[in-house]
Amino acid sequence: MNNMKTLKKFISLSFHISPAYFFLLIFQSMMETGQVLVNVILPKYLVDELVGGRNRDNLIRFGLYIVLSNVAFLFLNKTMKRIMDVRNIYMKEKLNQAMADKIMKVEFACLEDPYYLDLKERAVFACRTMSALENLIGSVAKVLNNTVTILSLLVVMFTLSPIFVLLLVLTISISVVAQKFFSKYQLEIYKELIPINRRYGYYVSLGFDAKYQKDIRLYNMNQMLTDRVLYYNRQIYDWFKGFIRKQGVFQGFVGIINDLQAAIAYGYVGIRVISDKMGGRIGIGSFTMYVTAAINFTTSATDLGKNIMTVIQMLGYLQPFMEFMSLPDEAKKEGSIPFEGEVESLCFENVTFHYPKSEQLVLKGISFEIKKGEKISVVGLNGAGKSTIVKLLCRLYKPASGTIYINGRDIYEYEFTSYMKCLAAVFQDYKLFAFSVLENIRGGEEEEENEINRERVASLLGQVGLKEKMEELPKGMDTLFGKQYDPGGIEMSGGQSQKVAIARALYKEASLIILDEPTSALDPLAEAEIYEHFNQLVGDKTAIYISHRMSSSVFCDKILVLDGGLITDFDSHKKLMEKEEGMYYKLFQSQAVNYQI
Amino acid sequence: MNNMKTLKKFISLSFHISPAYFFLLIFQSMMETGQVLVNVILPKYLVDELVGGRNRDNLIRFGLYIVLSNVAFLFLNKTMKRIMDVRNIYMKEKLNQAMADKIMKVEFACLEDPYYLDLKERAVFACRTMSALENLIGSVAKVLNNTVTILSLLVVMFTLSPIFVLLLVLTISISVVAQKFFSKYQLEIYKELIPINRRYGYYVSLGFDAKYQKDIRLYNMNQMLTDRVLYYNRQIYDWFKGFIRKQGVFQGFVGIINDLQAAIAYGYVGIRVISDKMGGRIGIGSFTMYVTAAINFTTSATDLGKNIMTVIQMLGYLQPFMEFMSLPDEAKKEGSIPFEGEVESLCFENVTFHYPKSEQLVLKGISFEIKKGEKISVVGLNGAGKSTIVKLLCRLYKPASGTIYINGRDIYEYEFTSYMKCLAAVFQDYKLFAFSVLENIRGGEEEEENEINRERVASLLGQVGLKEKMEELPKGMDTLFGKQYDPGGIEMSGGQSQKVAIARALYKEASLIILDEPTSALDPLAEAEIYEHFNQLVGDKTAIYISHRMSSSVFCDKILVLDGGLITDFDSHKKLMEKEEGMYYKLFQSQAVNYQI
Repeated sequence: MNNMKTLKKFISLSFHISPAYFFLLIFQSMMETGQVLVNVILPKYLVDELVGGRNRDNLIRFGLYIVLSNVAFLFLNKTMKRIMDVRNIYMKEKLNQAMADKIMKVEFACLEDPYYLDLKERAVFACRTMSALENLIGSVAKVLNNTVTILSLLVVMFTLSPIFVLLLVLTISISVVAQKFFSKYQLEIYKELIPINRRYGYYVSLGFDAKYQKDIRLYNMNQMLTDRVLYYNRQIYDWFKGFIRKQGVFQGFVGIINDLQAAIAYGYVGIRVISDKMGGRIGIGSFTMYVTAAINFTTSATDLGKNIMTVIQMLGYLQPFMEFMSLPDEAKKEGSIPFEGEVESLCFENVTFHYPKSEQLVLKGISFEIKKGEKISVVGLNGAGKSTIVKLLCRLYKPASGTIYINGRDIYEYEFTSYMKCLAAVFQDYKLFAFSVLENIRGGEEEEENEINRERVASLLGQVGLKEKMEELPKGMDTLFGKQYDPGGIEMSGGQSQKVAIARALYKEASLIILDEPTSALDPLAEAEIYEHFNQLVGDKTAIYISHRMSSSVFCDKILVLDGGLITDFDSHKKLMEKEEGMYYKLFQSQAVNYQI
Repeated sequence: MNNMKTLKKFISLSFHISPAYFFLLIFQSMMETGQVLVNVILPKYLVDELVGGRNRDNLIRFGLYIVLSNVAFLFLNKTMKRIMDVRNIYMKEKLNQAMADKIMKVEFACLEDPYYLDLKERAVFACRTMSALENLIGSVAKVLNNTVTILSLLVVMFTLSPIFVLLLVLTISISVVAQKFFSKYQLEIYKELIPINRRYGYYVSLGFDAKYQKDIRLYNMNQMLTDRVLYYNRQIYDWFKGFIRKQGVFQGFVGIINDLQAAIAYGYVGIRVISDKMGGRIGIGSFTMYVTAAINFTTSATDLGKNIMTVIQMLGYLQPFMEFMSLPDEAKKEGSIPFEGEVESLCFENVTFHYPKSEQLVLKGISFEIKKGEKISVVGLNGAGKSTIVKLLCRLYKPASGTIYINGRDIYEYEFTSYMKCLAAVFQDYKLFAFSVLENIRGGEEEEENEINRERVASLLGQVGLKEKMEELPKGMDTLFGKQYDPGGIEMSGGQSQKVAIARALYKEASLIILDEPTSALDPLAEAEIYEHFNQLVGDKTAIYISHRMSSSVFCDKILVLDGGLITDFDSHKKLMEKEEGMYYKLFQSQAVNYQI
C-alpha cells in the first residue's frame, strides 16, 4: 500500500539517477549466491574422498577446486563491493542533492507552514541522521541477494528430499509469522517513544547549545534542565526495559525454532546416512553438503526477514522524504511573460491575504498605488501586516483575493526568474552565505566575474561604509564569510553584515528596492550615515521601507499606515503629522517626545 | 599514548557511572566464548559416532548434548544481551548527560572561544552523530569477547599440534601487519577528506535550511549553491574512488591470506586424517573439530583486528570529548563569601579587558561608580565595549586587570550562585526555553510553585503587557513555549518573547538589573509602553541600560559614554547635552534631528 508506493517512487527516482546501478545490484546478488553454493556443494566431494577412496590426487584436486573457486568468487565479490560502495555514495549524495534542490525550489509557503516544515525536518532527519537512503539501498540489495541464495539452496536441498525442504520451510514459516507479529508490535510501541525521544533530545541539545548558556547561568536553569533530561531519560529507559523484555521472549522463541531447524537438519540428514527407511542412503560428503545447505538456508531466511523489516522501517522513515519530493515547484507554477524594463508603477487592488491553514485575514482588502521613483515607508504596529506586503510582492505568497499589478499587469503573469530580477529586498532576517564578500554581493549573476563588476562591488562597499574594513583584509572582497570553513575568513558584526546585505540588494540593479527594518543592528552614527546616503544609494529607484524607527519616514515621499490589516492612511509625513488623532501621529510622537531638546 | 590516555579516562568515567557494567561485560564475553567452544568440541563426538559405532543411543545422546547446550547458551547469551542492551543505553545517556552538564558548567569564556567551540562541536558530533560512545562501549566488549574466544581456541588447537597453531598464528600475523599499515594509510587519507566534507556539509545544509530560502530565491543563489555542492561532491567522489581502489588491493591481499589459512587448516588436518607422518592419526570427528576451531579462530582474529580498529577510531573521535570533559568548571572556580542583601554600590576600578587569545584591549582601564537605585545608560558606537561591561559584571569573563567591586568587595570573592542571584540581565540574544511561560519566568527557583509566586508571575505578565495574550490561552501561563513539543504550545512574536524575557529578569528580585538593547523588536507604541513602565517596573532597583535608541537615555540618572574602550563621559543627559563637541551629543543629535516636529 503506502509503503509499496514509497518503494516504487524511490526505485523510480533512483533508476532515474542511475539505471546501471540496478543491473549491478542484480549481478552482485548472483555472485554472492555463487560463493555460497560453491561452499555448500564442493566440500561434499572432498569429504567423500576423505572418507572413501582417499586418493591423494583427487584430494588435492578437490581441495584446489574449493580454494580456487573461493578465490575467484572472493575477487569478483570484492570488486563488486568496491564498485557498489562508490556507487552507493554517489546514489546517496544524488538523492540528498535532489532533496536540497527541492527545498530550494518548493513553493515558499511550504517553508513557513509548520506541517511542511515538520515534514522537511523529518525528511532531513531520515536522510542525514538515519542515513535512510543508504540503508534502504543496502537492504534492498540484501533482500535481492537473500532471495537468490534461498532459491538456489532450495534447489540443492530438493535433490535430497521434498519432505526435508517442507520441514525446513514449515519451521521457517513459524519464524516468519512470529517476526511479523513482533514487528507490528514494535512499530506500535515505537510510536509511543517518538514524542518522548523528541523532547528528551530537545532538552539535551539545549545543554549542548552554546547560545543558551548565558541565560542558563543567569537564571539558574541548569537544575531545571537536568531534571527534565532525567525525567525523560527515565521514561526512555523504562520503555526500553519493557521493550527489551518482550524482545527477549520473542528472540527466545525464534531461538527455539532455530534449534528445531538445526535438529531437523542434523536429524533428518543423519538418519539418511545411517538408515534407508526414508530414502536411499547418503554418504558423509552428502551429509556435510545438506547440513551446510540447511544451515545456510536458515541463516539466509532469517537474514531475509531482518532485511525486509529494515526495508519497511526505512520506507517508513522515507515517507516524509517522498511526500516532500512530490510537492510542486515554485518557479514553474505560473507566468510566462518575461519582465522587461523598469518598474513604472505598482498597484495593490483590494488585496486580501491569510496564511495557509489559518482563517484569520492578515490583509483585509488593501488598495494603493506607488509610482516610479517614489520612496514609500510602511508603518504600523507589530502584526499589522507590514512584512506580509513584502512577501506578497516577492511572490513568496499569493494573495487570497485581489491583484497586485506591476506596470499594469498582474505580477503572476510574469515569468518567475525575470520578475525576481526587478526587485531586491533586505529582510529583517536576511542571511549571508559562506561565500566570499564579492560572491555574496554579486549573488547568482549569470555574467562572468570581471573587472567591471568587481569595481561595482567595491564602489558599493564604499558607499555602505565598508571600504576601510575591506582594505584591512589581505584578500579584500575575496575573503570568505566566516572563519568556520576558512581560517582566513572574516567574522562580521551584526552592523557590518547588515551593510553587506544592503550592498547586495543595491547590486542587483533592480528598479524596486525593499528594506525591511534594515538598520536595527546599527549604532546611531552608522544608522544616520545609512539614512544620509539612503536617497543617494537608492537613487531614482522605487523603494519600500519598513522600520520601527519612525524617523526614517521623514525621508519618504509617502507613508502607508497599516492598522489591523487595513490601510488607514497613505500620505506624506507633513500631511500625516497634521492629523493629531491618526495612528501615524501617535507612533511618531511616541518616539519623538524623548528626542525633543 | 594519547589514545591510551583517552581510553583510560573513558574507562574510569564509565566505571564511575556503573562498576557493575564491567563485570557484566566480562561475564558476557565468557558466555559467548562458551557457545563457540561447545559447537567446536561437541560435534566431534557425534561425527565420530556417525562414522564409527553408529550406536543409536549414543547418536541421540550426542545430538541432545549439542542441542541442549546450544539452547542453554543461547538462553544465557540472549538474556545477557538483553541486559547489556538496556545497560548500554543507560551508559550512553549518562555519558551524554555528563557532556551536557559539562557544557552548562564550564567556564563561559570557553563557549565564546572558537577553539573550544570547535572542540565542543566535535565532541557533540562524536556523541550524537557518530554514536562514538555507544560504538566504543560495544567495540571494547567485542575485543574482550574475541580475545577470550581466541585464547580458548588456541588451547583446543594446541591439543592437535603446536606446529598447527604456529602456522595459523603466522598467517594471521601477516594479516595483522597488513591491517596496521592500511589503518595508518586510512587515518592519513581521511584527514584530507575532513575539510572537504565539512564544506560539502555546509553547502548542502544551506539548501536544507528553511531560513535561507528567502534570500536564495531573491538573489538567485540556487545555481551558485548547487555548483558548490557539485564541486565538493565531485571531490569527495574522486577521493572515495581512490580510497576504495586501495582498499580493494588491501582486502584482496587479506582475502588471499584468509584462503591460505583455510588451505593450511584443511590441508594440515586432512593430512593428519590420512597419514601419520606428522603425528598420530585422527578421526573424522577430530577433523571436523579442528577445522571448525581453525575457521572460528580465523574469524575471531579478523574480527579482533576490526574491533581494535574501531576502538582506535572511536577513541580518535572521542578525544575532543575527553578534552572538553577535563576543562575546569566555572562555578567552583572562585569565591566563598555568600552574597547577602542588596547591591548598595557598584564600582569598576581601572578595569582592562581583552578576549582570551586576542591582544586587542576592549576595555582600556575604566573606572566608574554606581550607587544604589541609580539608572545608568551605557552608550557608544558598535564595538565600543558596552556588552563587555555586562559580561564582566555577570562573571562570564574576568577582567585582565583592575577590579570590580560590589558593596566594596571584589565580585570574585562572592560565592558564585549567591552572587548570580543579585543580578538579572536581558541580553540582546536572550533565549527562552520550551518550558511553560510560568517556568520560563520563574527559572530555576528553589522554592516550590505556589499560589503566591504564580500571582507574582501573573502580575509581571500584566505589567509587561501580556495579560490579554495569556488570557487567550486555554492553559494560561502554563502553556508551553513553542508548538514543536506540544501541539497546544504557543508561538510568540519577537516583541512578545522580549516582553517575557523582561518579565523573567524582573521576577528574579535581583537588586541590579541589566537590559542590553531590550526593546529592539518592539513597535513604537510597545516600546513607549515599556519605557513608561520602565521606572515603575524596575522600581528602586539599580539598573544598567544599553541601547542604540538614544531616547532611552533621557530617563536615566546618568549616562556612561564609551568610546574605543575608554569612558569619555559619565554624567546626566542634561549636562551631556550641553557639551556640543561630545560623543553623546553627536549620538543623540544624529537620531533626534529627524524627530524635530
